[in-house]
Amino acid sequence: MLASLEPWLHPVLIVLALLAIGFAILNFGAVKRILIGRPMRTRELYAKHTKLLWYVALPVLAADLYSSVAYGPEAGMTELAGLGDSAKWLILPITAATVSLLVILITSYIMGIMAYPDGGGAYAIAKDNFRRPWASLVAASALLVDYVLTVAVSVSAGIQAVSSAYPQVIPYETTLSILCILIILLVNLRGVAESASIFAWPTILFMISMMTLIFAGFVNEAHQGFHQAVTPPLGVLPAGLTLLLALKAFSSASSALTGIETISNSVPVFREPHQKNAIKAYIGLGVITGITLLGFAWHLYVQGISVNPNNTMLSQLAGLYFGHGVVYQVIIWSTFIVLILAANSTFTGFPQLAALVAADGFLPRALTIRGDRLGYSNGMLVLAALASLLIEVFHAETNALIPLYAIGVFLSFTVAQAGLVRRWLRLRQGIWPVKLAINAVGVGVTALVAIIFAVTKFTDGAWIVIVVLPLLVALSAAVHRHYEQIGRELAIDLAEERPETHSVISIVLVSGVHRVVLNTLSFAQSIHTNVIAVYVGFDEESIERMKKQWEAWGSPCKLYTLKSEYRSLLRPLSLFIGTLERIEGGPDRVHVIVPQFIPRRWWHNALHNQTALLIRLWLMRNRDVVVTTVPYHLHQ
Amino acid sequence: MLASLEPWLHPVLIVLALLAIGFAILNFGAVKRILIGRPMRTRELYAKHTKLLWYVALPVLAADLYSSVAYGPEAGMTELAGLGDSAKWLILPITAATVSLLVILITSYIMGIMAYPDGGGAYAIAKDNFRRPWASLVAASALLVDYVLTVAVSVSAGIQAVSSAYPQVIPYETTLSILCILIILLVNLRGVAESASIFAWPTILFMISMMTLIFAGFVNEAHQGFHQAVTPPLGVLPAGLTLLLALKAFSSASSALTGIETISNSVPVFREPHQKNAIKAYIGLGVITGITLLGFAWHLYVQGISVNPNNTMLSQLAGLYFGHGVVYQVIIWSTFIVLILAANSTFTGFPQLAALVAADGFLPRALTIRGDRLGYSNGMLVLAALASLLIEVFHAETNALIPLYAIGVFLSFTVAQAGLVRRWLRLRQGIWPVKLAINAVGVGVTALVAIIFAVTKFTDGAWIVIVVLPLLVALSAAVHRHYEQIGRELAIDLAEERPETHSVISIVLVSGVHRVVLNTLSFAQSIHTNVIAVYVGFDEESIERMKKQWEAWGSPCKLYTLKSEYRSLLRPLSLFIGTLERIEGGPDRVHVIVPQFIPRRWWHNALHNQTALLIRLWLMRNRDVVVTTVPYHLHQ
Repeated sequence: MLASLEPWLHPVLIVLALLAIGFAILNFGAVKRILIGRPMRTRELYAKHTKLLWYVALPVLAADLYSSVAYGPEAGMTELAGLGDSAKWLILPITAATVSLLVILITSYIMGIMAYPDGGGAYAIAKDNFRRPWASLVAASALLVDYVLTVAVSVSAGIQAVSSAYPQVIPYETTLSILCILIILLVNLRGVAESASIFAWPTILFMISMMTLIFAGFVNEAHQGFHQAVTPPLGVLPAGLTLLLALKAFSSASSALTGIETISNSVPVFREPHQKNAIKAYIGLGVITGITLLGFAWHLYVQGISVNPNNTMLSQLAGLYFGHGVVYQVIIWSTFIVLILAANSTFTGFPQLAALVAADGFLPRALTIRGDRLGYSNGMLVLAALASLLIEVFHAETNALIPLYAIGVFLSFTVAQAGLVRRWLRLRQGIWPVKLAINAVGVGVTALVAIIFAVTKFTDGAWIVIVVLPLLVALSAAVHRHYEQIGRELAIDLAEERPETHSVISIVLVSGVHRVVLNTLSFAQSIHTNVIAVYVGFDEESIERMKKQWEAWGSPCKLYTLKSEYRSLLRPLSLFIGTLERIEGGPDRVHVIVPQFIPRRWWHNALHNQTALLIRLWLMRNRDVVVTTVPYHLHQ
Repeated sequence: MLASLEPWLHPVLIVLALLAIGFAILNFGAVKRILIGRPMRTRELYAKHTKLLWYVALPVLAADLYSSVAYGPEAGMTELAGLGDSAKWLILPITAATVSLLVILITSYIMGIMAYPDGGGAYAIAKDNFRRPWASLVAASALLVDYVLTVAVSVSAGIQAVSSAYPQVIPYETTLSILCILIILLVNLRGVAESASIFAWPTILFMISMMTLIFAGFVNEAHQGFHQAVTPPLGVLPAGLTLLLALKAFSSASSALTGIETISNSVPVFREPHQKNAIKAYIGLGVITGITLLGFAWHLYVQGISVNPNNTMLSQLAGLYFGHGVVYQVIIWSTFIVLILAANSTFTGFPQLAALVAADGFLPRALTIRGDRLGYSNGMLVLAALASLLIEVFHAETNALIPLYAIGVFLSFTVAQAGLVRRWLRLRQGIWPVKLAINAVGVGVTALVAIIFAVTKFTDGAWIVIVVLPLLVALSAAVHRHYEQIGRELAIDLAEERPETHSVISIVLVSGVHRVVLNTLSFAQSIHTNVIAVYVGFDEESIERMKKQWEAWGSPCKLYTLKSEYRSLLRPLSLFIGTLERIEGGPDRVHVIVPQFIPRRWWHNALHNQTALLIRLWLMRNRDVVVTTVPYHLHQ
């Protein structure tokens, strides 16, 4: 019976639950206190954090980039899977190209750090070097889109790592992915952990795992040779390989480089000298990532590993070398944790960037509000909701999400590099021609990769991003225009414009003669305006009854009765107000006083027609009248 | 990509869309006008309707009962399907028992009509004859639950009739069923059609179809004998048949009798003499239904038709006699339409009963409000939402819904009959012993059927109803208690209690010095209370800036500045109000004036923090302060 509730309903319910929980924890005191913790004072934000040594900062900031090796090479090979075994050797040139790109990007980023010691990602660089805002908006929109994809891809890949080891998890991948996002969201709403360095350990463990795997591969090859029975032939171009397909595979593989911008955004967390230490960390991370990519690709080639949607290549290789024992489990779970950490760090990046853009007036101001725990809660909620939606739509399939991914990253790389090029041209200091050359190469390469990505993946899903991005930029511009126009409209001349006294007529809406009306009339008579009572009846009988009761009550003020033939309060009331406003020598302002029942328990509201609320909403929107609500708190 | 949105999302989206559309049509003028039509005046409700001749009223009111023959016999045989072919002959005794029950029920209902010429279903009869409200609440709750099931069962069975003819429809049964409910809802929100008699034709067509089918069966048997090769052996008790199983089959089959109460609820629509004509219609409908059930069952037996979840027994039999040509199509589509009509008439029954119960104070009063087209729109929305939910949970499988069905009907039958028994015992007029005897038998039989149903179907889903019913009764009682207590609390002594004038302090919340604040202060100074301005700042800087601006503006009134360390307006404001309330000789009432931005387009709201709204909501709930909202309509 009820157990027959379709299993597919679960992810949907979870998405809905996520939003409901998000809303609940931010709006209901008790739940919020338990899940999020006590509110924090603004000044706690500025409490000094310990600065990190470069080799401590390296693993702390490495998760974003380094975790991408878990899905990048596999994403590349998935594109070539249709060509059969003869295409397997192509993993070597593709990985070599990816590592070259890694070197170019890191060099370019080091230039960025030298120019902007306070961090400042693509948005800040673009804002500083382009006069018109569109360049920085493109960079920001591209990054925001990509942050959402980072969460979706990292979490999906993490769950896929687990389901490679435990195939019984496969049917629940979507549900579990969304659950992970929910947990990450909660952790982030609670706020930053006291010490960021605990985040270093899983990444270190994953790095060691990967190095062990690569080492084990060489040990194996030392015994069994570099060309084994399963090793595919080298250098033969497989039938069906086109330039487009090769570029497609390369662009998918280059998703292994996403997350490379993290260190450049976090220069201030390094110990003095900031810049020098950050550059050290960049070089260190680049070397480790490069070695990992090349070593991993080499062994995949030697062992002739095939793409299998239910068992990642990393899991296959680890299973081959270590069986399915403890070492295998360590590799799987450290992969999972590092991917979740990458998603987790995006929950800092996205809200911060959104707040920065919102503070400049290009996104809704609500994104700049710090929550109880000083994080930008609204940005976190938006990120979690969008990433969950993507996971739901793409069934948590990493390789289905990859075509949407990385365009944004490479686009924002391009804008940032172009900004640096303009900067060097403008400043012309020191060894500027060298810096210029490096960043010019950076612009060219990253723009090329972005274009390759957009063209080769267009029909696979890249079109979604290509459609969304300009919309986001246009929307940001429209938001900015709106805020500016309102700013102009609201400005007043302090010397000339002062408050003026108006003549006010107060209309008290009465529904009978009872305690709520008594309470409301008492207030109305206390504010010394011209007070009249208005009763709207649906039939003659009720109007007559009301008139008699009013007289019996000694007519506390003049009562007007209106008949509503359509059983609506709003229409006759609105006509009545219109008439008042048109009376010559009438009031300057109409003031409607509405009694409102406040039941003792919130669910009692279902038993009372929310007439007062509806009237207020309608009047506020449709007429220029002041509305006062006089509460009557029910004891029952 | 996006096309991979899972197909199962469709029904969920449709349920959500249903609620969204329901909300939209009732709240957005333009959409509402198109879908629902112009609002109607209350007096149009009392426009005279033509009274119907009994043989016209019969098909108009027959759809509810007569449509049940489409699923009743099949529901019975589904229970026995596990016993194999040797159980097929049991359809004869089961149908005979069902028809006997039909005779008893109709006789009992005729007694009801004689006692209550104005109609008045089980709820009215129980209310009139039992002093305590619980009996009538049981009857009402049981009927409301069953109305929801009528819609779910009828629509599912209608769609199943169609998918028997067009198997390609099978995967979309749930979606289509919910779509049907949406359409029925819209039609009903538009209101009653001018002439009810157009509803007679599909039912007449279906009756003729069934009669043709039965006649064709006898023609076939006249040629090929009453015992054909496929005819199962008669009279052998199949292995595995238990009393419980036989009772279960009987109780499922008796779902063919649901809808029998319709005529007794509609006595006033008959031409004079109401009662006599209604009784004629009852007898006529009983005879036709009895013949149909017996004839249909007989041919099912002779042809040895088996239960097939993808092809109804009716469709199988029709296919056998007529092939899949025009006659078959007429049978299928008239079945579909008549089942939809049965669901449609429930959209009158449920809201009317709910309004009746709500008017007595046992359900939320919102159910008594007539919509623009004079129907009880809220009741219709509730019915559509609950029926859609049931269809979604049970995948539109008629036979999965049957165990929940009919308990309610038989329970309310029992209460109504018991009410009549009490009535005859009380009045003791005319041939009361005969009437008493008839209704006493009615009580016994309907109570027995209800118990059989509850016991035999308990684990199949009947438990849901058995749990829901007492909850509904308890809830109704609680609602009543709430309304009564509030009535007592709000009553005042007209002679003694009069409005009193208080001293009021008005707090104007200011966020800076701009046009919105100017507008708000102008109003505040017009109402002749003690006005002060309050500014809540998040840091010292902004507070200093505000103080300077206020001075530069010539300090229109005293300004208090509050610092919020937790970046929340509510906490410092609430503390400030608390302090004001405790000042000795302070104001009797605190009055907070909040400026509110009204953007020109509703979606601009996303760009403005709804601070005013939140403050109002929080203050209303948590403190006894009057809140005034002064709108500022943005031009931009």
